[in-house]
Amino acid sequence: MLSLEIIREAHDRIRPYIHRTLVLTNQTINDRAGAELYFKCENFQKIGAFKARGGLNAVLQVAQNHEGTAITTHSSGNHAQAVAFAARQVGLPAYIVMPRTAPQVKKDAVRGYGAEVIECEPTLEAREAGVRAVMAQTGAVLVHPFDDDRVIAGQATAAKELIEDFGQGDQQPFDTILAPVGGGGLLSGTALITRYLSPTTRVIAGEPEGAADAILSFRSGQVERAPYIQTIADGLMTTLSERTLAIIRAHVTDILTVSDPEIIAAMRLVWERMKIIIEPSCAVPLAAVLKHPDQFAGQKIGIILTGGNVDLGKLPF
Amino acid sequence: MLSLEIIREAHDRIRPYIHRTLVLTNQTINDRAGAELYFKCENFQKIGAFKARGGLNAVLQVAQNHEGTAITTHSSGNHAQAVAFAARQVGLPAYIVMPRTAPQVKKDAVRGYGAEVIECEPTLEAREAGVRAVMAQTGAVLVHPFDDDRVIAGQATAAKELIEDFGQGDQQPFDTILAPVGGGGLLSGTALITRYLSPTTRVIAGEPEGAADAILSFRSGQVERAPYIQTIADGLMTTLSERTLAIIRAHVTDILTVSDPEIIAAMRLVWERMKIIIEPSCAVPLAAVLKHPDQFAGQKIGIILTGGNVDLGKLPF
Repeated sequence: MLSLEIIREAHDRIRPYIHRTLVLTNQTINDRAGAELYFKCENFQKIGAFKARGGLNAVLQVAQNHEGTAITTHSSGNHAQAVAFAARQVGLPAYIVMPRTAPQVKKDAVRGYGAEVIECEPTLEAREAGVRAVMAQTGAVLVHPFDDDRVIAGQATAAKELIEDFGQGDQQPFDTILAPVGGGGLLSGTALITRYLSPTTRVIAGEPEGAADAILSFRSGQVERAPYIQTIADGLMTTLSERTLAIIRAHVTDILTVSDPEIIAAMRLVWERMKIIIEPSCAVPLAAVLKHPDQFAGQKIGIILTGGNVDLGKLPF
Repeated sequence: MLSLEIIREAHDRIRPYIHRTLVLTNQTINDRAGAELYFKCENFQKIGAFKARGGLNAVLQVAQNHEGTAITTHSSGNHAQAVAFAARQVGLPAYIVMPRTAPQVKKDAVRGYGAEVIECEPTLEAREAGVRAVMAQTGAVLVHPFDDDRVIAGQATAAKELIEDFGQGDQQPFDTILAPVGGGGLLSGTALITRYLSPTTRVIAGEPEGAADAILSFRSGQVERAPYIQTIADGLMTTLSERTLAIIRAHVTDILTVSDPEIIAAMRLVWERMKIIIEPSCAVPLAAVLKHPDQFAGQKIGIILTGGNVDLGKLPF
């Protein structure tokens, strides 16, 4: 069980390597939502996404505990960069298995951190086979994108900072904190730390209709597959693991799904009004708030903006 | 002559209505430039651009001094929004003459602030004729986009904040502060306040090659026209006035020109690495720094990022 103490240790471990990111507000979006929104800007995080946190927490421990002499993982994007970045900090080689369909800007960024990219077919099976091959050849240690307590503890530190900065002490606690859900690493970390630091706060997830596995798993209690996978939110296509599902079932209030047009509209609203670049996956929680105003009216709401790594050559506008 | 006291009064006057905007840094861009860059993020300002400052300082004085019962101006974009926004703050009607070619997002924003948009042909003559007609019909007071001491004093407050926050007291003063130049309101205000608060700091302007009037005027001492006007930097197409030229000749060190491809590359670098949305005009000073590394190597540099009002349907990527 991931205790508060373990998350605090994770935060202390990664703090020298990460940004304590900004929290922004926007009057126009507040008016549109009928609520008071606080956006935790992990698009300004190292590597352009919150995944730096979990990747660092895992890789720093691999290095400190001498668990291996190289790191590997599979990822469609941000976790790949996170592991490459983290491996460079500790001086270990990194081998990153990426689907050949991943955005070029993300492959380039991984190579920019000095890691080796190994391309594979865009299926979970091909990705896992690629990682097994790397491990057999190099003895590298796997840092899984989400099915790893060290990664979850790292991801939890984003909501930890948000709560510490805007929802504790003399300040009114958040009514709701929202995060998107893909494999569930961020969501389960967010749910745990919110339970520890701000127990009256609901945690709600946003999920794309075109990758709607988490809502099914949340209801059935089993890890389910999505009925179909077709969404612009390319960071959220993975399914939960037993580990993340258990935490989510215990500590998350609800999962709300949104369509791709709703995601794109929310993304465009943030670009036009907040003047910051967020990736489609990132816009899912805001899209959920705008879709269900009755559930959020008048609330103080925290939203984790997860990343800003967009291929500018392939925008949906 | 615009004294330090007048700029301080302008800042006190507009402070309740504006954001004290963030200053961001980025390691990748510093490495690329070989210098230490501080970006003053006026893209996060009210109306999405620094022009809120000058517009407010003028309109607040029109209202307080009972100089008129309506406001008018002509502008291709951000000044239009600034005046519309400022007029709404004081409860005066605003009539904004805009070229019919101005981005739709800017026309919509002006109307969103409750102002009336009067479209005209995209020439300076048509714009000035449009304003004269409005003044004759409505008795509105003109707030010129740059040829107005009150506007210049307002624009000066952006660099004032930058210097106060990062270049005074125990901190090393800036070696250089850069701003783009169109009509010269921002540049002359920036040059004046820098002279007052940080006299060892050079002020340098960036100008598009496709609207290169200021560099000619700077050299000749006369207000010159650009040889041709064709640039993506749509906020910088205007020529200087006698007023702004005099200040610029007295207090600006140099004007550097950049091509549209250089502007687009700098804009893309900021979008991809800083994850913030800036308009093309805004990228001109960074393009100048990247083009002339010899002139800026090792320096502490402030750059005014002027605005983020981009038509997402018409991106140059």
